[in-house]
Amino acid sequence: MSSISEVRLLAFDVFGTVVDWRNSVARHVDGFFKREGLDIDALEFATDWRSLYQPAMEPVRNGSRQWVTLDILNFENLEATLIRHGVEPGRFGRRELDDINRAWERLDPWPDSVEAIKRLKKKFAVATMSNGHIAGMLWLSKYADLHWDAILGAEMAENYKPHHDVYRKSAERAGLTTGAAAMVAAHNDDLLAAQACGLKTIFIHRREEHGPLQTTDLVPEGEWTLVAESLGDLADQLGC
Amino acid sequence: MSSISEVRLLAFDVFGTVVDWRNSVARHVDGFFKREGLDIDALEFATDWRSLYQPAMEPVRNGSRQWVTLDILNFENLEATLIRHGVEPGRFGRRELDDINRAWERLDPWPDSVEAIKRLKKKFAVATMSNGHIAGMLWLSKYADLHWDAILGAEMAENYKPHHDVYRKSAERAGLTTGAAAMVAAHNDDLLAAQACGLKTIFIHRREEHGPLQTTDLVPEGEWTLVAESLGDLADQLGC
Repeated sequence: MSSISEVRLLAFDVFGTVVDWRNSVARHVDGFFKREGLDIDALEFATDWRSLYQPAMEPVRNGSRQWVTLDILNFENLEATLIRHGVEPGRFGRRELDDINRAWERLDPWPDSVEAIKRLKKKFAVATMSNGHIAGMLWLSKYADLHWDAILGAEMAENYKPHHDVYRKSAERAGLTTGAAAMVAAHNDDLLAAQACGLKTIFIHRREEHGPLQTTDLVPEGEWTLVAESLGDLADQLGC
Repeated sequence: MSSISEVRLLAFDVFGTVVDWRNSVARHVDGFFKREGLDIDALEFATDWRSLYQPAMEPVRNGSRQWVTLDILNFENLEATLIRHGVEPGRFGRRELDDINRAWERLDPWPDSVEAIKRLKKKFAVATMSNGHIAGMLWLSKYADLHWDAILGAEMAENYKPHHDVYRKSAERAGLTTGAAAMVAAHNDDLLAAQACGLKTIFIHRREEHGPLQTTDLVPEGEWTLVAESLGDLADQLGC
């Protein structure tokens, strides 16, 4: 707990750590598919769509592509995923594709998230440190009733985690040294990068983010500052 | 009310509209002066310090100075104001000058602000659209118990209101057309610029922002979308 005493800001990964993207995206797209009479497994579609997420950010991270916000990458990945499932994207109009893409602003929080963040907010500043862009985080948070003090993350640095600029620039924009911030995430690679930048690290168990057969991030794989079973457990541990 | 029905985001000017900078800064600096045995009128000092605010932003607006955040301008203005009152800034250490400068993160809200913003937040996204930087807005809001959905404003555009880039870029970062946002301010010049960018405009009466002898912004001077006596009155008018 000693090193946590320096922390003034809890910076949250959002997709997977705070919200359940897999079931939420599946439910969202299922409506569109049913209306079109398309026989597509919505959970499989959600997983396939998400599988293009990391590769799509890589060109921005390595400098071979100029910064674009996540909604643009998600849109491109949506078209690719539709094609992979044998659906011509043009079947939907541009407006409808935009609506499908807004699945990422309609994600349900994990059952413990909303209340735990309210509790943590009384003692700490709480902010998003997501690869989502400001607008995406804003409208997702309105939908999911998540209350942040600030939206930080990718758009602060015009780069994507785990690029170090994102963590450093976000702390700087909050007026803090990196040591006064803690990264809260269900993903070891996110915490590893945050730790390398000097942030404290808090691992949250989300054993079914990728479904019941999840094989990754089942255990903390680094020397993290804290490990919690849930955000509610974290609030308990921090005396909030 | 009809044009307000398009609005999804209320964007608030903060200094003067939401918080009482004059009495708060005076109280904050008074402690430092008393401790040093300095006989300086704290309200006069606060007014003098603030009088350098607009001229300090002008070089950034007209492009003759590179972007710097407001805490830096406030710091420079603090040194100038101390000198004007016959005090050598070096009398205070750098850390103490920083503490004095943090007056701008220790501003009390007007009595109606906290509750009214909570009410408005249930129906609208609420954000700061201030010339304050992200860190300043974040820590001021923690101090004053102000709950925003996002911090927008000057740092989004790396420019200062009433430069149009600030309004346009802030709406863009929120994923909105300017017509889906309303500027909430106690200052006619702020609303005039916001209106020119397509935002809706809401004038809030703050007749004593500059003290009991205030001569400016006593009445709405444009065709604003709404006029309210206070933020509480605005929440009433908007059915929140």
